Amino acid sequence: MQALVFDKNVYYTNNYPKPIPQQNESLVRILMAAICNTDREVIKGYRPRFKGVLGHEFVGVVEASPDESLVGRRVVGELNAGCKTCIYCTTGREHHCVNRKVLGMEGKDGSFAEYMTIATDLLHPVPDSLSTGQAIFCEPLAAALEVVEQSHLRPSQEVALIGDGRLAYMIGQVVALRGTPLMVFGRNAKKLAMFEPFARTSMTPQGSFETVIEASGSPAGLETAISLTRSMGLIIVKSTFAEMAALNTSELVVREITLRGSRCGPFVPALNLLNRGLVKLPPIDLYSLAEYQEAFASRAFKSGFNFQ
Amino acid sequence: MQALVFDKNVYYTNNYPKPIPQQNESLVRILMAAICNTDREVIKGYRPRFKGVLGHEFVGVVEASPDESLVGRRVVGELNAGCKTCIYCTTGREHHCVNRKVLGMEGKDGSFAEYMTIATDLLHPVPDSLSTGQAIFCEPLAAALEVVEQSHLRPSQEVALIGDGRLAYMIGQVVALRGTPLMVFGRNAKKLAMFEPFARTSMTPQGSFETVIEASGSPAGLETAISLTRSMGLIIVKSTFAEMAALNTSELVVREITLRGSRCGPFVPALNLLNRGLVKLPPIDLYSLAEYQEAFASRAFKSGFNFQ
Repeated sequence: MQALVFDKNVYYTNNYPKPIPQQNESLVRILMAAICNTDREVIKGYRPRFKGVLGHEFVGVVEASPDESLVGRRVVGELNAGCKTCIYCTTGREHHCVNRKVLGMEGKDGSFAEYMTIATDLLHPVPDSLSTGQAIFCEPLAAALEVVEQSHLRPSQEVALIGDGRLAYMIGQVVALRGTPLMVFGRNAKKLAMFEPFARTSMTPQGSFETVIEASGSPAGLETAISLTRSMGLIIVKSTFAEMAALNTSELVVREITLRGSRCGPFVPALNLLNRGLVKLPPIDLYSLAEYQEAFASRAFKSGFNFQ
Repeated sequence: MQALVFDKNVYYTNNYPKPIPQQNESLVRILMAAICNTDREVIKGYRPRFKGVLGHEFVGVVEASPDESLVGRRVVGELNAGCKTCIYCTTGREHHCVNRKVLGMEGKDGSFAEYMTIATDLLHPVPDSLSTGQAIFCEPLAAALEVVEQSHLRPSQEVALIGDGRLAYMIGQVVALRGTPLMVFGRNAKKLAMFEPFARTSMTPQGSFETVIEASGSPAGLETAISLTRSMGLIIVKSTFAEMAALNTSELVVREITLRGSRCGPFVPALNLLNRGLVKLPPIDLYSLAEYQEAFASRAFKSGFNFQ
């Protein structure tokens, strides 16, 4: 089958073996798969040990499963498969299991291929009313929802969001759906314009906020976030980057600021919001898998692969 | 009067003008004043703009006050005097007022002198049952209480404490008073022994904890704290240090760790705990003000000045 494989470097092949589901796994035929920033980082060397098919954002059709009700259904799926026995798996934090397998990143082939196998309990059926091109946004929307899954953001309290990219666009909408006044700081006027239906926007970070969400993807964003956050306020950090950040921890201590890392989120509320049409989705640029170089180089809001 | 003054350098004088209380201020005759690590940092240049009398931990007797009920009473006092009008002062965060005056640090003479003036609403009467040598620990105990003022630490969840100094000793006791199992990691076997009545102790940081309190006073402590904290766990940072810390923020994000700065705390619960005899106090080495060099160089758990 076709697959986009990482093994020190990334390459396309038309000759990858079709996977065989193990016990508790389902076989999924991929309809669409999207590129996440993490995929770009894997290619840059962020997961040097990983060998296999890349990708973890997907919509597919179940072709075989121990759960017969799933066969023939369109599904999305979570990326982290825990060991089920450790302190994380037994306390509702399976996505932090230290022995977990992660689609396209750690010990498990991902979704940039015609077929994929996945632990059946990670799958979520896609409502018929949602198109595949909408459902593909479930994983990034879930990551945005993690912000409010972790932290109580009072609807009456203005939030600042740093960043104007894909993830910021999802986060901004999730926050604004609570009625929260939202201020978005970005660098790209065209991208910022997309936030204007639900937020104030500016290219000059200023003001003071109880809560600041850092989703710029740049180490400088964290410094900006600290300067915008009120004493005793909260900074939610969504950006990951390979570099170490030089942090003035004394300012955090003296001003009693809370810094909270935030990553993957819950799929069910994401599907609910998508199904109700409450989240505006950015356009996605679709390519064939063989055109992976163009897909990764795309400067569109979101890009991915169409297998249909 | 006698005073220990900072003006680029620190010096002792017997000729400092006795302060005159302004409107809403009280005149306090100092009985005892203690050295805080912050005083050492002011001397090192942490507050280069400050000129005046050092010190903010004190017990004194009110000699004049607009509140007549205070005259003749022993008092302790909070160090931050806010502007009463800004967003911080009007939302219960006066100690974060950006225009605040801070005893012995910012715009206000401190307690290393025979007399001091202070905003009357910052004073708290000391119960008669408490000796001056006990009440002098009110401010550091309040700073320890800030940990549980800010964060809900479940009594059933083990806490790790990094540090074996003065502040750590107070924090450890406050946490252990909740019934919480406590693990203390330190570097000095003799100091660690003081924690043993209420905690397990070790000189080798290991294990994994939902909550880790960093009170080592060293930048390396933060790295240790991250390594000890479970994913989705909480690190409370009490240490301040001038250096920037190189922080792996991606680890914080990927592991969804929360980092919370923590500083000054509430005086009333500190007086309550002291008055009930629930906190064991370390010995304090007392000097005359003229012996300030010995007092600052003291390697005792706590040192200070006796004016009686």
